[in-house]
Amino acid sequence: MTFKYFWEDFKVGEVTEMGRRLVDRDEVIAFAKDFDPQPFHVDEAAAEASIFGGLIASGWHTCAMVMRIVCDNYLLDAASLGSPGVENVKWLKPVRPGDTIRAMRTVLESRRSGSRPGMGIVKTRWDVFNQNDELVMTIEGFGLFKVRAGAAAP
Amino acid sequence: MTFKYFWEDFKVGEVTEMGRRLVDRDEVIAFAKDFDPQPFHVDEAAAEASIFGGLIASGWHTCAMVMRIVCDNYLLDAASLGSPGVENVKWLKPVRPGDTIRAMRTVLESRRSGSRPGMGIVKTRWDVFNQNDELVMTIEGFGLFKVRAGAAAP
Repeated sequence: MTFKYFWEDFKVGEVTEMGRRLVDRDEVIAFAKDFDPQPFHVDEAAAEASIFGGLIASGWHTCAMVMRIVCDNYLLDAASLGSPGVENVKWLKPVRPGDTIRAMRTVLESRRSGSRPGMGIVKTRWDVFNQNDELVMTIEGFGLFKVRAGAAAP
Repeated sequence: MTFKYFWEDFKVGEVTEMGRRLVDRDEVIAFAKDFDPQPFHVDEAAAEASIFGGLIASGWHTCAMVMRIVCDNYLLDAASLGSPGVENVKWLKPVRPGDTIRAMRTVLESRRSGSRPGMGIVKTRWDVFNQNDELVMTIEGFGLFKVRAGAAAP
């Protein structure tokens, strides 16, 4: 398999539009029934009576939907070695069935590993907006990527 | 609906075993096909050839599985008002099909809202172990809960 993106391809300061996704009502309910069956995620009537005034997606479902946008935009074409984690997942506004979310990526930091010079770590922020350009979620996270073959040692 | 747990019921320093869950192979693949179709999450042969040496669960799937443990343990019985977010999601070791994960909750901080005295915010850490007592994931996060009716103003 040949990859399109390696560690060197993530430039600090770069901002990229990653893509968008329609928030599907059946998927919101199915995800929540499996993993987060709080009433405001699974029960229309209970959600309407709640502080949210209607069904909202589980925050974990929003993370998962954005992960799929990320995969389709670049991660499946990247020499990815996984992720050690994410920080500062902020659920800022409800995400509702029928919304269309879109995700922007900003590269915050990048460094090549000293101990494992064949790889590098990239810190990015993902900003997620709805169709009204309201910021609904932000995530800061780390990705590990292979360095391009033949790159000089750091 | 009557709730069992309100803001007052989360005591700083308290450590609680929340429950466990078998990591199902079909669910690992199905979740990843929907949301995180990297080869080491969806393709047995590619996963064996990867640095992980076999299929591993998407980190977001591990978050979702732990959320279900949390729901079943206390959150569905709590006067929850949702969550503004989580910090420091650390994917420390691979989670594999056939593993059994268990989650412990530690209450880190708690304060009643000054501006909205009917609610309080609780910060907890969730430590997730596998069947070999290896720490595979930690999450620190915030939850909003109603204060018990009739509680004196702060």
